[in-house]
Amino acid sequence: MNQKKIRVAVLLGDPTGVGPELVAKALAQGPPPSDVEYVVIGDKRIFDEACRITGTAVSLPDLPRLDENTQLADPVSFYNLSGLAPGQYQYGAVDPKAGKTVLDGIMLAVTLAKRGIVDGFVFAPFNKEAMHKAGSRHLSELELFMEEFDVSDIPGEVSLLDELWLVRVTSHVPLRDVADLITGQRILTTVRLIDRVMRSAGLQNPKIALAGLNPHNGEHGLFGDEELRIIKPAADACRNEGFNVVGPYPSDTLFLRIEKEALNGIVAMYHDQAQIAMKLMGFDRGVTIHGGLPIPITTPAHGTAFDIAGKNIAAPTALMRALDVCIRMARSRRTDTAGGVK
Amino acid sequence: MNQKKIRVAVLLGDPTGVGPELVAKALAQGPPPSDVEYVVIGDKRIFDEACRITGTAVSLPDLPRLDENTQLADPVSFYNLSGLAPGQYQYGAVDPKAGKTVLDGIMLAVTLAKRGIVDGFVFAPFNKEAMHKAGSRHLSELELFMEEFDVSDIPGEVSLLDELWLVRVTSHVPLRDVADLITGQRILTTVRLIDRVMRSAGLQNPKIALAGLNPHNGEHGLFGDEELRIIKPAADACRNEGFNVVGPYPSDTLFLRIEKEALNGIVAMYHDQAQIAMKLMGFDRGVTIHGGLPIPITTPAHGTAFDIAGKNIAAPTALMRALDVCIRMARSRRTDTAGGVK
Repeated sequence: MNQKKIRVAVLLGDPTGVGPELVAKALAQGPPPSDVEYVVIGDKRIFDEACRITGTAVSLPDLPRLDENTQLADPVSFYNLSGLAPGQYQYGAVDPKAGKTVLDGIMLAVTLAKRGIVDGFVFAPFNKEAMHKAGSRHLSELELFMEEFDVSDIPGEVSLLDELWLVRVTSHVPLRDVADLITGQRILTTVRLIDRVMRSAGLQNPKIALAGLNPHNGEHGLFGDEELRIIKPAADACRNEGFNVVGPYPSDTLFLRIEKEALNGIVAMYHDQAQIAMKLMGFDRGVTIHGGLPIPITTPAHGTAFDIAGKNIAAPTALMRALDVCIRMARSRRTDTAGGVK
Repeated sequence: MNQKKIRVAVLLGDPTGVGPELVAKALAQGPPPSDVEYVVIGDKRIFDEACRITGTAVSLPDLPRLDENTQLADPVSFYNLSGLAPGQYQYGAVDPKAGKTVLDGIMLAVTLAKRGIVDGFVFAPFNKEAMHKAGSRHLSELELFMEEFDVSDIPGEVSLLDELWLVRVTSHVPLRDVADLITGQRILTTVRLIDRVMRSAGLQNPKIALAGLNPHNGEHGLFGDEELRIIKPAADACRNEGFNVVGPYPSDTLFLRIEKEALNGIVAMYHDQAQIAMKLMGFDRGVTIHGGLPIPITTPAHGTAFDIAGKNIAAPTALMRALDVCIRMARSRRTDTAGGVK
């Protein structure tokens, strides 16, 4: 039987950053897996410019339309979303016009996903400020996705660095509010999220460590008791629900336990607890996964890298890993949806 | 002229941990610099056992007394502080008896320092819990030193990892209290401390970066405004006082700027902001400096390593660096005290 391929949309990201270059470089590495097809979405003129900058010899067929009946003849196709041409923006500058093209691309991808025309999407880095200046009323893309897919209660993004998965119970909130936001329910919700994402990427019974909140876990309540009052009971509740959860561990030594304890995932209590470690362990390789949504959406964890945009310096490592994770999750979802097929 | 040597006391640390082994191994690496002499302080039986375990052939002359008139004939001498013998404690166990010997050693070293008999001291790792069980009423050794040397207003320890110096505006406090403890005055005091320590270790006009408090520095007040209200004005105040201060930088990317911006020092706002990074960058190499006291006191940043105590596995790298920093600071202090000599 000729099963329908997994179709992944690939968005160029902010044209003022390294996004288009990264897409060109990633595609130049070779075709997608045989069960996958890509549709690159963006302004074709920007993509052509990125190919020129990177010396990439990739010629992509243009799709005149992209709807429920579209059959792709090639492993990689291009769908032009006319917006901005080279010369109309500057590399490395926050530009509302560029932010507008990013927003247009994301809204198109969301629509395509809702209509089942794509199985997931990957976007190259964009600039939040440019999107805000272009009129976006969402704090970040996560809020946009939650609204569009009508999903609530997603604590935040999941990150992947090499084989380590990371998620945060709280994220873009003031540090002074963090302690009050740490509740047993939020921890449980977050563990469910990361566990689901890891399983959907193919892990069996993933081992998840909770971070503590206070220095040295508060040293038995000497300076902070959230570990005793909230996090330990939450770990018990997670285990009772069948999750393979350990901790809480003091956050300054938690990241040294990864190998020794064969940890697959880490649940941090706040943004920088996770991000300081993740960026030190491999700034350029990390992937952000928008888990908990009906379809997989991934992106490089790094940003637009304005200082090297347009210079053919940026490496497509993280974008390629973002593609890989998106594909793994889309495959798993299709297997689940097909029912019974393992 | 035959100038008096710099005399550094070296304490064995908790006998149930790796401390005595580390001292034996460090001494086996060779004699101190020619302008320095060491006095090792602890129970001689424990040191002999550590030499046996590590296969160290170090024979140290015993000092019958150690006072203002003591002249040392050798680069390294031993001063016996009888307390506990091998067989009376177990490796890897929290033991109040062991904690008592640690406390005795520290109090002796403090006394020797106050009387000018030693120029500084270095202690191998000890276990805080054992000291508390032995009756210590101080949260940590820093509070003990502040009381004994009658010094107030020391925000915390300074850490050294390779060539990077680190200090924290807040330390062993609940995370929920951190934001309220971040004040301009505390930041200024902390910058003064790290600057003084770095200069006393030989750095000229050291470049110091302040960390932000909130994720992404709060993104212009979107989630947290301490950067705008407190940290930026404090950075200005520091520069007005002549310090070479930059930042605040978002803490998750701050540690990636060290090389590029040639940073010498980092002022973190809270414990784990510094410690997560420091332990990832080199858990085994870090040194803790008790700065702001009249004499230099240093120790390895790592702990007693109970799991490998007595097994001849632990590396003396950090202890040797702690000795080196203590010596540099003691030399600088003597030069300053001599007046005019540069």
